[in-house]
Amino acid sequence: MNTSRIEAFSDGVIAIIITIMVLELKVPHGADLTALMPLIPKFMSYVLSFLYVGIYWNNHHHMLHTTRQVTGSILWANLNLLFWLSMFPIVTDWVGENPAASVPTACYGIVLMLAAVAYWLLQRMIIAMQGAQSLLKRAVGHDWKGKISPALYALGIGVAFWSPRSSQALYLFVALLWFIPDRRIENALVKG
Amino acid sequence: MNTSRIEAFSDGVIAIIITIMVLELKVPHGADLTALMPLIPKFMSYVLSFLYVGIYWNNHHHMLHTTRQVTGSILWANLNLLFWLSMFPIVTDWVGENPAASVPTACYGIVLMLAAVAYWLLQRMIIAMQGAQSLLKRAVGHDWKGKISPALYALGIGVAFWSPRSSQALYLFVALLWFIPDRRIENALVKG
Amino acid sequence: MNTSRIEAFSDGVIAIIITIMVLELKVPHGADLTALMPLIPKFMSYVLSFLYVGIYWNNHHHMLHTTRQVTGSILWANLNLLFWLSMFPIVTDWVGENPAASVPTACYGIVLMLAAVAYWLLQRMIIAMQGAQSLLKRAVGHDWKGKISPALYALGIGVAFWSPRSSQALYLFVALLWFIPDRRIENALVKG
Amino acid sequence: MNTSRIEAFSDGVIAIIITIMVLELKVPHGADLTALMPLIPKFMSYVLSFLYVGIYWNNHHHMLHTTRQVTGSILWANLNLLFWLSMFPIVTDWVGENPAASVPTACYGIVLMLAAVAYWLLQRMIIAMQGAQSLLKRAVGHDWKGKISPALYALGIGVAFWSPRSSQALYLFVALLWFIPDRRIENALVKG
Repeated sequence: MNTSRIEAFSDGVIAIIITIMVLELKVPHGADLTALMPLIPKFMSYVLSFLYVGIYWNNHHHMLHTTRQVTGSILWANLNLLFWLSMFPIVTDWVGENPAASVPTACYGIVLMLAAVAYWLLQRMIIAMQGAQSLLKRAVGHDWKGKISPALYALGIGVAFWSPRSSQALYLFVALLWFIPDRRIENALVKG
Repeated sequence: MNTSRIEAFSDGVIAIIITIMVLELKVPHGADLTALMPLIPKFMSYVLSFLYVGIYWNNHHHMLHTTRQVTGSILWANLNLLFWLSMFPIVTDWVGENPAASVPTACYGIVLMLAAVAYWLLQRMIIAMQGAQSLLKRAVGHDWKGKISPALYALGIGVAFWSPRSSQALYLFVALLWFIPDRRIENALVKG
Repeated sequence: MNTSRIEAFSDGVIAIIITIMVLELKVPHGADLTALMPLIPKFMSYVLSFLYVGIYWNNHHHMLHTTRQVTGSILWANLNLLFWLSMFPIVTDWVGENPAASVPTACYGIVLMLAAVAYWLLQRMIIAMQGAQSLLKRAVGHDWKGKISPALYALGIGVAFWSPRSSQALYLFVALLWFIPDRRIENALVKG
Repeated sequence: MNTSRIEAFSDGVIAIIITIMVLELKVPHGADLTALMPLIPKFMSYVLSFLYVGIYWNNHHHMLHTTRQVTGSILWANLNLLFWLSMFPIVTDWVGENPAASVPTACYGIVLMLAAVAYWLLQRMIIAMQGAQSLLKRAVGHDWKGKISPALYALGIGVAFWSPRSSQALYLFVALLWFIPDRRIENALVKG
């Protein structure tokens, strides 16, 4: 089994997720500038989620580049990741409608955390399949970003009940942490 | 005619089906935990359908791997399978809105059964094209899962009129039966 | 410019068109069998449109198989075809809601006719690019189906104002005409 | 990193954008010709946006043809372009509902301008990566279309507050400017 079809399918699902989030940006009811006001929090949460889904697509792209084969367990670990990514549109929309509420912000963090765990699991399974000489293992190294992110999401979930805005700022901070392109895999690929 | 475009098109359709199901998970009307309650049955039926569509994608992926050519009849058998898979979002949503009702649960079973029959037909046509030396035929073997599933769906359709919950448990049981990755095709491919 | 990306993009658009039509099949309001009744005409129009989009995808697949290159005009002729195919969901839905009305049925026929004309134009442009030795030209031959279909659609548009049901039966008849796989291109490819 | 997956992902997102715009063309409430009247401005804005998205896809297709490699920055510049293209459905719909209003028409122009800037940035980054011998740089040449378009969009945004119709005519004019297939890249590729 090679990786081409798992890449194509993941691309399809991620492309759809990133695009249907925009469906939630409903057309304003009026035709003047004030009609745009209620869209602002929805637009912000769309931007944050677009950034997150873009980061996942980018890293997924790099990760699958280190392997040529997939097993049944990798297919399922990948579907698990896609499942949690498919939860982004609904929590994005919920936060966009209630930007100052605790529960939606905490739920957003829970989905972020479960997607991060699913990504980590997929990474584990590819490393396990590649064995001792795993290219991905060397590329990932200590993986401090992968380890610190779930902790920051957990912090964000707690903080949401005290200050949803701070929690959202924390999610944005984690996104920016990842936004800086991860050269580890590119470097490892160059080294062979 | 090679298989690459039928794979790409099927991937596209399945990726969309798996993703639009999430559109039915409408954003809660409130912003607290109780607002999530009515979403629970919808979430459960989404999980079950995601599992089913994932299983179909996985097996479809494996099945098309055994062949390099497609005929006109295979294209239509594939479109027939995609048609029944495209019915998943509506029955999923209907069961999610009426988890304790008999007719939606029975309809869900009917769609599951017709998709299973469509899958079996597609398998038949690929085997027929491959002839006596069919790699897929050897891979599938006695195909007890393929034979028992429609019977269990039929049982589930009947049980739905007596206890919708038991029927839903039965559908979940069949999904788990298939969830365990099917090594038959992988093994047959290795053997040649 | 090779054909791979035009195929991939067309596959994507057609996959989405075929799938979003199902979004119009809204979940029934009740939970019993009578709740399914109003869905029947919508389901029928979905089946007819699925058949039509499936036929277009199949023939598009075959047609692009005869060529390796695309020009700017072919890209635009293809986008024109995709535009008219993208009109299918809305006319399908309109006929499904008003199965006994003349105007929706006539509009459905207009969209069918314009899609057929767009397909014919795309075919013309590929033949023109291939020149005197055009493989596609030989494959298509007299193209009686391609010539008779727009005439039958025009007839259907007229008949819709007298009997919408007869008009719909005529559209189904044309679909079945095309459904029988077209071996012309496969034969021409085998001959070289 | 090669370009195949960035092409596949962009194709997926653009295919979805072009198709979900049609979802905004809601089915008419009546079944006669007068029921189609309110759809006319929506249909016109759909046609304009389909034309724009088609042009972007076409040019994107050509641009990525000049390169074999992508870097992390190119991936992000591409996601930025896709983000602005994903704004097309909502502004299209807003203009379609308020064809004679200034603010929606100006917003449409802002989205057109930001997408043009994003496209220009992506072009810059590919040229930078290709270095002094950049094939794309030679192909693009003086790029007068790329330079004049943002200026015309800016003019259109201003004009929208005086006459939305003139502004929309201007946007259509820019689209037609680009519609004439751009032979620069094809020529440069032929020359080597």
